[in-house]
Amino acid sequence: MRLLGLDPGLQISGWGIIDVAGNRLRHVADGVVRTNKDWSLAERLVQLYDGLGEVIDAYNPSEAAVEETFVNKNPNSTLKLGQARGIVLLAPAKKGLPVAEYSANLIKKSVVGTGHAAKEQVQMMIKSLLPGCEIKTADAADALAVAVCHSHHRVTQRAWENAVVMAGAKK
Amino acid sequence: MRLLGLDPGLQISGWGIIDVAGNRLRHVADGVVRTNKDWSLAERLVQLYDGLGEVIDAYNPSEAAVEETFVNKNPNSTLKLGQARGIVLLAPAKKGLPVAEYSANLIKKSVVGTGHAAKEQVQMMIKSLLPGCEIKTADAADALAVAVCHSHHRVTQRAWENAVVMAGAKK
Repeated sequence: MRLLGLDPGLQISGWGIIDVAGNRLRHVADGVVRTNKDWSLAERLVQLYDGLGEVIDAYNPSEAAVEETFVNKNPNSTLKLGQARGIVLLAPAKKGLPVAEYSANLIKKSVVGTGHAAKEQVQMMIKSLLPGCEIKTADAADALAVAVCHSHHRVTQRAWENAVVMAGAKK
Repeated sequence: MRLLGLDPGLQISGWGIIDVAGNRLRHVADGVVRTNKDWSLAERLVQLYDGLGEVIDAYNPSEAAVEETFVNKNPNSTLKLGQARGIVLLAPAKKGLPVAEYSANLIKKSVVGTGHAAKEQVQMMIKSLLPGCEIKTADAADALAVAVCHSHHRVTQRAWENAVVMAGAKK
């Protein structure tokens, strides 16, 4: 089972790919998609969409997970991040991948054991959970953390979705 | 010259197509793309993206314009709208169309003559500016207003962009 974790941002979006076999996790690849600040918003969104599409085509993951965006006090930042996040959700969904969403707290809890971990703690734990993986950027580390979180919760989430579908069918 | 106006929303996005010849405007088509509330966010964004893609393929506009989103006091609403708006900007840009953005105030000013017009005034003016057009939904009327606004400002906007590019080239 190959999972794609995504950490959305308009300027830089992080991505990380891991393989899961039972309880064992293996680092496959990670990186970031950057957009050009001098371009129009619409052009930057195309750049982000195409960049993520290339990652998905290259590594062919079967499921994706995206970090829930921290809702900022500055509404303009929230709007900007929301626009990027729409693209980050669309890119894998458009290729037929199921896309899960996790809060930043749950991601930290899954990786470090507490919801209030510092960025450095997350990076240290990612290195220890995924031996051989060198963290090049903080955004890619965050994306790998999303993928690790999804590896822990995907079975539960699937069971829950099926239960909801069955409850709906019974009505 | 055929223009596409877009009014973004996660549940309902309005679209409107007009033809422009000199100062004359002609209504071509309008409508809305709805997304299914029971679906996941990622699936709804695919629905929105595909729906807009069908409109663009069917009418083949040469330029698009999108209403700038009103930044809400509720950050969760702003985030939701931002995600839909990302898709609404991406869909035409991905098909190679230049995408302009206009504030709600400028759109109202272009159509009614004042930036603080009521929704009904906008609809009335759209009917009078685009004879023969029957307004079916408020969202489609708003999208037609964006297209009308773009027909007034596109030349100025282009000249400005070229001036910026030339100023950049001179550096």
